[in-house]
Amino acid sequence: MIHCRPIRLGEPQQALLVTELHNDRLLRALRREPVDRTPVWIMRQAGRYLPEYRRVRAQAGSFMALCRNPELACQVTLQPLERYPLDAAILFSDILTVPDAMGLGLYFAEGEGPRFERPVRSTREIANLAQPDIASELRYVTDAIALIRRELSGRVPLIGFSGSPWTLATYMVEGGSSREFRRIKTLLYDHPRALHQLLDRVVQAVTDYLNAQIEAGAQALMIFDTWGGTLAHEAYLEFSLDPARRIIEALRRDTPDGRVPVILFTKGGGLWLDALAEVGADAIGLDWSVDIARARQRIGARAALQGNLDPCVLYGAPEVIRREVRRVLEAYGPHPGHVFNLGHGIHPEVDPERVSVMVEAVRELSAHIHDS
Amino acid sequence: MIHCRPIRLGEPQQALLVTELHNDRLLRALRREPVDRTPVWIMRQAGRYLPEYRRVRAQAGSFMALCRNPELACQVTLQPLERYPLDAAILFSDILTVPDAMGLGLYFAEGEGPRFERPVRSTREIANLAQPDIASELRYVTDAIALIRRELSGRVPLIGFSGSPWTLATYMVEGGSSREFRRIKTLLYDHPRALHQLLDRVVQAVTDYLNAQIEAGAQALMIFDTWGGTLAHEAYLEFSLDPARRIIEALRRDTPDGRVPVILFTKGGGLWLDALAEVGADAIGLDWSVDIARARQRIGARAALQGNLDPCVLYGAPEVIRREVRRVLEAYGPHPGHVFNLGHGIHPEVDPERVSVMVEAVRELSAHIHDS
Repeated sequence: MIHCRPIRLGEPQQALLVTELHNDRLLRALRREPVDRTPVWIMRQAGRYLPEYRRVRAQAGSFMALCRNPELACQVTLQPLERYPLDAAILFSDILTVPDAMGLGLYFAEGEGPRFERPVRSTREIANLAQPDIASELRYVTDAIALIRRELSGRVPLIGFSGSPWTLATYMVEGGSSREFRRIKTLLYDHPRALHQLLDRVVQAVTDYLNAQIEAGAQALMIFDTWGGTLAHEAYLEFSLDPARRIIEALRRDTPDGRVPVILFTKGGGLWLDALAEVGADAIGLDWSVDIARARQRIGARAALQGNLDPCVLYGAPEVIRREVRRVLEAYGPHPGHVFNLGHGIHPEVDPERVSVMVEAVRELSAHIHDS
Repeated sequence: MIHCRPIRLGEPQQALLVTELHNDRLLRALRREPVDRTPVWIMRQAGRYLPEYRRVRAQAGSFMALCRNPELACQVTLQPLERYPLDAAILFSDILTVPDAMGLGLYFAEGEGPRFERPVRSTREIANLAQPDIASELRYVTDAIALIRRELSGRVPLIGFSGSPWTLATYMVEGGSSREFRRIKTLLYDHPRALHQLLDRVVQAVTDYLNAQIEAGAQALMIFDTWGGTLAHEAYLEFSLDPARRIIEALRRDTPDGRVPVILFTKGGGLWLDALAEVGADAIGLDWSVDIARARQRIGARAALQGNLDPCVLYGAPEVIRREVRRVLEAYGPHPGHVFNLGHGIHPEVDPERVSVMVEAVRELSAHIHDS
């Protein structure tokens, strides 16, 4: 069992930042510098596929109680690092903490995914939306980050994150997951100015939030645009990519530890790689539908790439996992700038032993690639 | 109310084929010939958004009972043509009739989409799968086609269709819709030869089925690859696109009415346009995430394009619908080879009046484009 000692109030946070980083492969790859092997981490690596996670989750009572408890969030953040030689930790939290802090009331209905008690549907409700005081409302997140940084003590870098403005807006307007996105799309087509007003507020809040994460010790940031791929081409550029760009531009990324890199991931964003390469992100996350060899040729030196194994490969036999890992690594090739990951979050029913096979395969096979 | 008189047994079917086609815009556009205006039809145009459809559906008792009754299938096929000046009829049926004919037992659970009573999961079950006698098992489809052709009497062409082999295989193995596609992906990664064996059987059955549709009077064919976009790049080429190519190659498309064009639609297939252009389809269906201007430049003279309005635009106000229709038409431009459609099936909750706005906008605006 991993335990995270609570931070003492008044403890100087700055002191936490200047720990030496023992494993900087992730940050080197994100800066497109040479590495001895390809860094690997897993989207949702702290999560339901791990029995030790399910125990802590049960102890916390609810998913949000777990997110809101810095000690428990720290504990589950570190769990996958105890099992696997991963090259990064990622803050255990949810992509929807910002709209929750804006007063929408995030909760998780059993088996249904995230929902909001008070969705924002009318132009009046958008106009009345409060700009949250991130520093106080989301203190539980920055406390967790500071705690995780201390417990990691430089073992690997810590990634902070948020949902993208478009993705947050879809949940805020729909009230939860959606198949059609009827409400937000109607807003987009019929009342684009109201949607921009909503997005502007979310951009401001997410910017504050990610800046607070940097201040608390996040060493890399990821923006998850889960629902960007549901948009028509021009709507994607206007309502998903541009708000994300404005956040990236407004981040205060220079820290005593160096410049904090940003990874931008649009699920289904393979059609928009050229546009994604121009918004100032250090790396672009790819889902598994993208041919990473062609993506690398297309993007060139404009950004690093993260991904992109089909998460279902982890249901396969060990030799199949090794074969598919090799395929992704060889497709990217010996060039700098690859962070190995799944093309989406790990499925909850994956056997943790198979994850071990994947991580070991990346370590072993990529060492040969970078050696050659 | 539309009524379709039953076909008399022994009626010479060949006589039905040589009706003069009064509106051949669809076929001309699919052949990339000039048209006076862009032809328009709507995926799932005969469907739940129409109150007259819901009445016949209730009368039939179940969705499959409606599909299996040629007179009622004819009736609902013609309904949207009574309301709107569409340029094509599409057979009312389901994409999964072939696996149903293979003995899997297709049914529709309320609000859950299609399911199979007897999914095919093991390599043994795949090996034991019967090759169906399409001519007799799917006689209800060919009877419906012959009946619709007679009732249309050349007003517009009739499109026949099937699901793609990959899409049929996903339902056959999963037993219904899926979020993760765990079972079929495990088969794909762990037992690719067994999956190929399954796909080979489906390719043969779908080929027989589409050839029977041509013989019965289908004047164009569409292959719906609903789930191709869930595949990794190389897996898409091997397990979705190649089986579709083999069907297209094996179709007997030369008829007394001329050569029957084929439209291939992969939802989420925008990444694979180059590969799609090489499989022998006359047209490629595009979902709404694709920039149709760039797709046209990329595809050039290799294929016509069908699409690709976001289906959610039909929830918008009339002036918004007109604006978005114009955007798609202008993006394609005055070049030959565009068939206007939604980027996916029409949503069941759309107001039929809004469909009218869309169809009228295509007629009016495209006439100017082709005039210039």
